[in-house]
Amino acid sequence: MDDRIHEHAETLVDWSGRIESGDDVVLSVDEGAHDLAVAVAEVLGERGANLLSVYRSDEIQRAYLRAHDDDFDADPEFERALYANADSVLLLGGTRNTAGRGDVPDDRQQAFARAREDIREARLATDWVSTLHPTRALAQQAGMAFEAYRDFVYDATLRDWESLAAEMDRLKTILDSGTEVHIDAPGTDLTLSIEGRTAVNSAASVAYDSHNLPSGEVFTAPADAEGEVTFDVPMTVRGKTLRDVHLVFEDGEVVDYSATAGEETLAALLDTDDGARRLGELGVGMNRGIDRYTDNILFDEKMAETFHLALGRAYDACLPADEAGNDSAIHVDLIADTSEDATLSVDGEVIQRNGVFRWEDEF
Amino acid sequence: MDDRIHEHAETLVDWSGRIESGDDVVLSVDEGAHDLAVAVAEVLGERGANLLSVYRSDEIQRAYLRAHDDDFDADPEFERALYANADSVLLLGGTRNTAGRGDVPDDRQQAFARAREDIREARLATDWVSTLHPTRALAQQAGMAFEAYRDFVYDATLRDWESLAAEMDRLKTILDSGTEVHIDAPGTDLTLSIEGRTAVNSAASVAYDSHNLPSGEVFTAPADAEGEVTFDVPMTVRGKTLRDVHLVFEDGEVVDYSATAGEETLAALLDTDDGARRLGELGVGMNRGIDRYTDNILFDEKMAETFHLALGRAYDACLPADEAGNDSAIHVDLIADTSEDATLSVDGEVIQRNGVFRWEDEF
Repeated sequence: MDDRIHEHAETLVDWSGRIESGDDVVLSVDEGAHDLAVAVAEVLGERGANLLSVYRSDEIQRAYLRAHDDDFDADPEFERALYANADSVLLLGGTRNTAGRGDVPDDRQQAFARAREDIREARLATDWVSTLHPTRALAQQAGMAFEAYRDFVYDATLRDWESLAAEMDRLKTILDSGTEVHIDAPGTDLTLSIEGRTAVNSAASVAYDSHNLPSGEVFTAPADAEGEVTFDVPMTVRGKTLRDVHLVFEDGEVVDYSATAGEETLAALLDTDDGARRLGELGVGMNRGIDRYTDNILFDEKMAETFHLALGRAYDACLPADEAGNDSAIHVDLIADTSEDATLSVDGEVIQRNGVFRWEDEF
Repeated sequence: MDDRIHEHAETLVDWSGRIESGDDVVLSVDEGAHDLAVAVAEVLGERGANLLSVYRSDEIQRAYLRAHDDDFDADPEFERALYANADSVLLLGGTRNTAGRGDVPDDRQQAFARAREDIREARLATDWVSTLHPTRALAQQAGMAFEAYRDFVYDATLRDWESLAAEMDRLKTILDSGTEVHIDAPGTDLTLSIEGRTAVNSAASVAYDSHNLPSGEVFTAPADAEGEVTFDVPMTVRGKTLRDVHLVFEDGEVVDYSATAGEETLAALLDTDDGARRLGELGVGMNRGIDRYTDNILFDEKMAETFHLALGRAYDACLPADEAGNDSAIHVDLIADTSEDATLSVDGEVIQRNGVFRWEDEF
């Protein structure tokens, strides 16, 4: 077995999951994630944790959902009880076919998800972590050879997380005390109000309220937005590619938009509800192991030398205790490159120039 | 997908499991049983049952157990709650390597099983059914080509169970009202007392208290045994092959024994405890789809034209309510061919001659 699989497993269990002896751990294994599951099981055994493996198969799910009608039982107790009594859930992504559930009707999938809201809540109440084992299907989606994709995934995942967490804390401190972010780049001249908002240091560990491995971003929830922004990193949303999305904000709301691809999808997203026309997140990617777009949001939004904005719902962790924030039904991330001709400033002071932070280059 | 996989799934869900709309079903999927799991999921969706898939991987289990020490938490609640709240558990066997856990120390496996007695009880309290999806590893163990082994498995599994259940009921009726069984065959001259005992019609359905698919045997618990018996079908016990086991009984107890292979293993089995020298089961194989030995007890003991005796523990279902029966720690089945020069009689009347029942040939 590739040594990196074992290192991935140790990072997941120890750094991300903070799993200890006696913890009850659900291991959710995608069809193509078997090898990582074996390595994780070994580490869980060493730590003295308790293990139950759930098989998260797209093909099983597809067959079940297509055969079922739209009337699902609400939160079957056997599954709710499993998660309600678990300490941790480790989700090992690794599909063998990213289109594997493509012929399940959307409304069927939505009915199924709605019927299982309590199960989802019980799962999210654990110390859950989602990670990804490289498969040929994911390499194909990224447009990469399998060997090259594996190198990419491990470069992104096997970081010195402690040192990255310390670096990200610098940006969090600046954002927490700041009142206004300004981003200047080709096609972008945007001012965001962040007064009273709290940034999250997303360091790929439940100890940081961060549930993705890899992670590597600092994000907050803008209160207001003024100006224009261009997203030059493509993004797949609802199966459609969005390219060169351009948004114009007035008083926090999108008043004009365009895209060179996927403009109809963009229009439909903006029409979802009131919150869909307002921002829910500003995130700054800081994972230098991620140096290219792979059409997978788990990686793309953490790419170094990018920032992203999400239309829609804000995370509670970023908001003052007495504020509801954007509660849209959508949360769609859009990503922009900042490696050239770009600055990100807080309260008039340049924090990042052309992808390089102040503390890296002492400007 | 082979149509037989779909038929297998329907037989498992409908005939064996009697699963209905709203049932909470745990699907336990071996590494090599994926295709059967997909077919079962489709049938469960059609029936409107609720589904959670557990991944029963030998490789995950091996890695976990080897890394763990011998000190396991007793009955972790998350897993106990899953089974305690389930209506049915469908166990889809289908290993990719029958030696996959061979290097896990026996005492470690035993400590793990002992710590999980309540979980096991919760699982056995459901309408559980164990079945088998043909894999290359199982074909290899049977000494058969894969295609031939698949045909064998489906011949054994896709029976007219309703009609076999009716036939087996004839034998059950005879055994229930009988007091003494006599078996006469080359190397066998054995008398078994069965007075007051109740036979089980093991018709591969929870409706018959039968939890294996395939099944196809009628079994009871002898109260006493006198005479000698030779088992000419080989049997793998604790990794060792037993051949031509010969036992001599006096007052229900083994007083002499021999074997042409595995005699030491046999001796160790007999020395386990007092019950290990006494019988717990007489079974008569009646599945005519099973026409050869494949070194898998799920099939071998149901083979038509054979009977088997088990040293050790008796099933409660066969015993009078006020009787404890054989409670040995072991239950080891040994099988004999009755297709030639053999009779099985109840109270002096021949019920089966050379593998053919009275009602088949009107003797």
